[in-house]
Amino acid sequence: MTIDHCDARFKTLFEPVAIGPVTAPNRFYQVPHASGATNASPRVRAGLRAVKAEGGWGVICTGACSIHPSCDDAPLPFATMWDDDDIRAHALMTDAVHEHGALAGVELFHGGGGVLNRQTRLPALTPSGKGWSSNHSVFMSPGRPRAMDAADLKDLVHWQAAAAKRAKQAGFDIIYVYAGMGYLPHEFMLPDYNERTDGYGGSMENRVRIIREMLEATRDAVGDGIAVALRISLEELLTRPGTVMETEAHEAVSLLSPYTDLFDVKMDSSPTDCGPSRFVPEASHERMAGFVKSCTDKPVVGVGRFTSPDTMVSQVRRGVLDFIGAARPSIADPFLPNKIREGREDEIRECIGCNMCIASWHEGVLVRCTQNPSFGEEWRRGWHPEKVKPAGSTDRVLIVGGGPAGLECALTLGRRGYDVAIADAGSEMGGRVLFESGLPGLSAWRRVIDYRLGQLKVMPNVELYSESALDAEQILEFGFERVVLATGATWTPALFTKMEIAGEELDHPNVYTPSDLAAGAKPEGPVIVLDCDFHVMGGVLAEKIALSGQAVTYVSPAGGASAWTINANEQIFVHQRLHDLGVPIRTLERVNGFDGATATVADMLTDRETQLPCKSLVIVGLRRQNSDLHDALMERTADWGDAGIRTVERTGDALSPGAIAHAVFYGRATAEAMDGPKFLTFKRDGAFHTPPERNGNAMIAAMVD
Amino acid sequence: MTIDHCDARFKTLFEPVAIGPVTAPNRFYQVPHASGATNASPRVRAGLRAVKAEGGWGVICTGACSIHPSCDDAPLPFATMWDDDDIRAHALMTDAVHEHGALAGVELFHGGGGVLNRQTRLPALTPSGKGWSSNHSVFMSPGRPRAMDAADLKDLVHWQAAAAKRAKQAGFDIIYVYAGMGYLPHEFMLPDYNERTDGYGGSMENRVRIIREMLEATRDAVGDGIAVALRISLEELLTRPGTVMETEAHEAVSLLSPYTDLFDVKMDSSPTDCGPSRFVPEASHERMAGFVKSCTDKPVVGVGRFTSPDTMVSQVRRGVLDFIGAARPSIADPFLPNKIREGREDEIRECIGCNMCIASWHEGVLVRCTQNPSFGEEWRRGWHPEKVKPAGSTDRVLIVGGGPAGLECALTLGRRGYDVAIADAGSEMGGRVLFESGLPGLSAWRRVIDYRLGQLKVMPNVELYSESALDAEQILEFGFERVVLATGATWTPALFTKMEIAGEELDHPNVYTPSDLAAGAKPEGPVIVLDCDFHVMGGVLAEKIALSGQAVTYVSPAGGASAWTINANEQIFVHQRLHDLGVPIRTLERVNGFDGATATVADMLTDRETQLPCKSLVIVGLRRQNSDLHDALMERTADWGDAGIRTVERTGDALSPGAIAHAVFYGRATAEAMDGPKFLTFKRDGAFHTPPERNGNAMIAAMVD
Repeated sequence: MTIDHCDARFKTLFEPVAIGPVTAPNRFYQVPHASGATNASPRVRAGLRAVKAEGGWGVICTGACSIHPSCDDAPLPFATMWDDDDIRAHALMTDAVHEHGALAGVELFHGGGGVLNRQTRLPALTPSGKGWSSNHSVFMSPGRPRAMDAADLKDLVHWQAAAAKRAKQAGFDIIYVYAGMGYLPHEFMLPDYNERTDGYGGSMENRVRIIREMLEATRDAVGDGIAVALRISLEELLTRPGTVMETEAHEAVSLLSPYTDLFDVKMDSSPTDCGPSRFVPEASHERMAGFVKSCTDKPVVGVGRFTSPDTMVSQVRRGVLDFIGAARPSIADPFLPNKIREGREDEIRECIGCNMCIASWHEGVLVRCTQNPSFGEEWRRGWHPEKVKPAGSTDRVLIVGGGPAGLECALTLGRRGYDVAIADAGSEMGGRVLFESGLPGLSAWRRVIDYRLGQLKVMPNVELYSESALDAEQILEFGFERVVLATGATWTPALFTKMEIAGEELDHPNVYTPSDLAAGAKPEGPVIVLDCDFHVMGGVLAEKIALSGQAVTYVSPAGGASAWTINANEQIFVHQRLHDLGVPIRTLERVNGFDGATATVADMLTDRETQLPCKSLVIVGLRRQNSDLHDALMERTADWGDAGIRTVERTGDALSPGAIAHAVFYGRATAEAMDGPKFLTFKRDGAFHTPPERNGNAMIAAMVD
Repeated sequence: MTIDHCDARFKTLFEPVAIGPVTAPNRFYQVPHASGATNASPRVRAGLRAVKAEGGWGVICTGACSIHPSCDDAPLPFATMWDDDDIRAHALMTDAVHEHGALAGVELFHGGGGVLNRQTRLPALTPSGKGWSSNHSVFMSPGRPRAMDAADLKDLVHWQAAAAKRAKQAGFDIIYVYAGMGYLPHEFMLPDYNERTDGYGGSMENRVRIIREMLEATRDAVGDGIAVALRISLEELLTRPGTVMETEAHEAVSLLSPYTDLFDVKMDSSPTDCGPSRFVPEASHERMAGFVKSCTDKPVVGVGRFTSPDTMVSQVRRGVLDFIGAARPSIADPFLPNKIREGREDEIRECIGCNMCIASWHEGVLVRCTQNPSFGEEWRRGWHPEKVKPAGSTDRVLIVGGGPAGLECALTLGRRGYDVAIADAGSEMGGRVLFESGLPGLSAWRRVIDYRLGQLKVMPNVELYSESALDAEQILEFGFERVVLATGATWTPALFTKMEIAGEELDHPNVYTPSDLAAGAKPEGPVIVLDCDFHVMGGVLAEKIALSGQAVTYVSPAGGASAWTINANEQIFVHQRLHDLGVPIRTLERVNGFDGATATVADMLTDRETQLPCKSLVIVGLRRQNSDLHDALMERTADWGDAGIRTVERTGDALSPGAIAHAVFYGRATAEAMDGPKFLTFKRDGAFHTPPERNGNAMIAAMVD
């Protein structure tokens, strides 16, 4: 572990730090975060954790790991520590992490009223019968939690201890009590949820009692040699004046400090904890970690989507935190620590804060990352964020289109050793990202092209040609053996079905698409933005148009603005921003008609119609693959042989339109499949499962006891 | 299989019917339906299918079973037929079904633009690049499908054939091509989705071509001896005039008839196919099945939430259909056929059409049923819809409360042989169901108590006492060894948090809860119904109040009215009904203040406030367990011994408030756990999984080819 090339000012980041009885090799701490890889995909999970240990992170934690079937977060992905099969599943991860010299931590978890037990069907548990409030539909259920009685409290402490023992068997070095994010121990701290009149409600001391007991039980269960950590959310408590200290948050930290080896500080809710870069800057949690540090002598880990080593060092030096906590930056670049250590900061693949990662959890599926398409694919597709397999032939590859897919494809092929040329029609490489990163708040998205162009420009085997529109004839003349078309997609005024606006009205000159706006069109107000896309574009265009001084109304068939972005923790900010700009938000509506002066807006569910003044209609609807070049080449397959062309394939949006994350992923996949396995082939993971006939019919609730 | 006691007029239901080369033993056909049990829970799945074969259903089908990783419906539960492990998983089900003499069918499935491939990350496939439209958030993704090219079409047919071969190996007798519900083959039939200009678009003949090819390929793949079935949605095509026949639907059936052994007729979307009883009556699909039968000589299976044997016979006799298709009624009563055959029609546990079953699928979890709490629990908890284990002691059981939980608990205990007494304070047994089934459209919910009371009244070991409110003293005097408190829950004006209405305002005499309305309160208009519950109650109370002639406005923090009920296919009907009644729907809002004349309504996301005239505020908020009796008894544990009481426990809403389904489930669980395994203990299921190191590192896409 030489740090020879490390800039002197960053060396503090590589100091070992003790966490109770164990010692982290450096200050880079991958805090617990969701990955979508559950105990049903233990190899996928071990793969995505291990690659971060390989990349230099000193501590690697699991995501939330349920201690008992009364904590069942289905359909959201979560880990379990319920039985021997679970121990085997987690041991794959701890072994892999230890191989690289890192510590492994497990975030033991009871969700309380924040989970709904829809799969196990056990009653959900809360301090006082009040569920965690959310208007995200995946958190709704007609089932309500019960108020815990004295026996339930004892059970909870016992379950924590039992799970801690299993965690020790699985090889973990750090074992968490998780008192954050509306989960059960956090609910005990909040008077809104805790109306108890026994020793677990009322004073701050009472409200942290269950947490103290869980910490003590954990330590008793695992003995010496293993650290006990506390993950805690203090956002609301920091607004509540304390009795003996400044705030209740200060009191909670002071009361719990003797019982933990480390504080892992979190905000109270996903949007404040993991805010999108569009609305929340780097290092936004500083205030939170900093005050905790002032109340304890135990090490503190804090997050803040850190990608700048200078910011990291500053936070350590100023005593804000001891560990550089990270979820998103460690996903975007698992090798971030090693790159700093080796003096390669300029090679860091910086998180863009688009929140595709957390969105995948809210969608209930495996994690994905815009910047790092290999994340989650280490085991099942054999991809690595830094290493590639060597070229399978000496074929030269022509990539048409320098957007995110084309650049990622070129980067991977270039690293593999292929001779690559990228031809792009524009004056600047970047494709869709050039437009999108210029929209309000989205400048960080430009990192997708900046990182790739920075790498590509120093590769001797890659040529970049801007202002180089190619037609089929020119591609044939180019004579490269492989042709990859990364020609992107175009927004069209065509909609999903059930949008009844007529064909001729769509042809009205005052109908615009995002592609028209990208090309410079300036819709005149009053404008209606009809969002049938549900991702970022509709909301951000309404914002842009409002900022340009035009009157604009946002209309969407969904129940909220930028409806899908609730998954990316963004929707609440979108509503607030549009409200601040005076943009009316009309939900559950479509546009039925438009004549250049008036739009007919109709209720999606009842068809009730309203007329709105509307000079310009911006339709954020369907994106279609740009296929002309592909079609032209497919018509000339007879000429490929003479031209020396072996294959022509599409990638990115030209293959299947999506977010930038999809484009980058397809670009990588195309490069991985060159001379190799079939496109997007994968290995299938599966749980360790001892059928009951072989484990003596042990029943799960009984095993946990 | 004697049918000695079968009413003569029902005997036609028990005639064998040929389906191509196989013969179903009778006309009872469990059509494919979602169960939430995937290939990761093959034992659970085999259990819930097998119990229906045991109960007399002649054909038992799987739910949707993906033929290729390009059809990935995650996070919704779906089955797969991708590899050898999948064959093993399905064989558990076919073996179990065959044991009972039924046929096993598999619904092979490619979801096209109706699935989003968020887990496998392959591009989604559609005829022309247009995704299936939905404003249900689980169907949203920034990823868009691609338009299929000629190679994709060949692949699709090949995948269907390959999956059919595996299905044959797994032991299925009937193999489906699934052309319904917006999935890929259905999309080909609809001009809104199919804009192709090749041989697969344009004329009806062209638009069914891919379906014909899939049917032919299936038959070629499996050879003689196995039936090929077509599941088809024709709702929209029935509205499109045909070229040579009355409608395009007629033409589609005629064109495809030669290639299938059976038509399984479905509507186009979940709300029209599986409508809640509140809005859609029994036998609502008659028109659809009937016209198909008029266009083909192949047997037709149709559904319609049939529970009346007279309706079933009528549909057969009138030539509407050949098979009594069922999903929901077969879940509510797996023994429906046997009960008819044995002349026990009055013992049928009739589906109430509450749609908790389909809702569980939209929630991404294991199926559950209000009427049949054992459904899905056959394997993991060892429950059976008709059989119980004998009593574990001679203890007598006093159940306090005759609502759904108390009645189910009594029924199960009574069947087990316990002496049971139910004491209820009301003049009539039924608890919450008495009120709820009296609300507009909900009369079918009364079947929950009617069925149970009908059974209980003839059991010699069960006594029912109405008008018998008991206090702790009286329970101690009662002297039964076991006390079960099924005392229900009460709606309170307390809300989830983040609802900022002040405490004193909640005490205003014009603030009402559903419990107040159940007790006879009549709120005076203008009324605001504030729905923080998101299930049925808020919407149906707004409807009731409007019907009573009072002005009423519906307000909810969620993005739609009765937001959770989108999962139960109900939300669209709620909006339409409230609209028809002139009830304004205000979404994404809470109530911040109320003074008996005006309510302050605030935007959930921006806090913008609006004043609304409001004389009465109905808060559909938190339900709290009725705990007084439990608390009183727990204070007197010292007296239990003398009274002969061994245990006191809660069940139903008194344990944890929920829908009726939850109450019935807990009632059953309490009875199952009496003298037995711990409450709600279960066995854990798991996939068959051959780790890659033992199967030669086969990659999934390669195996499918």
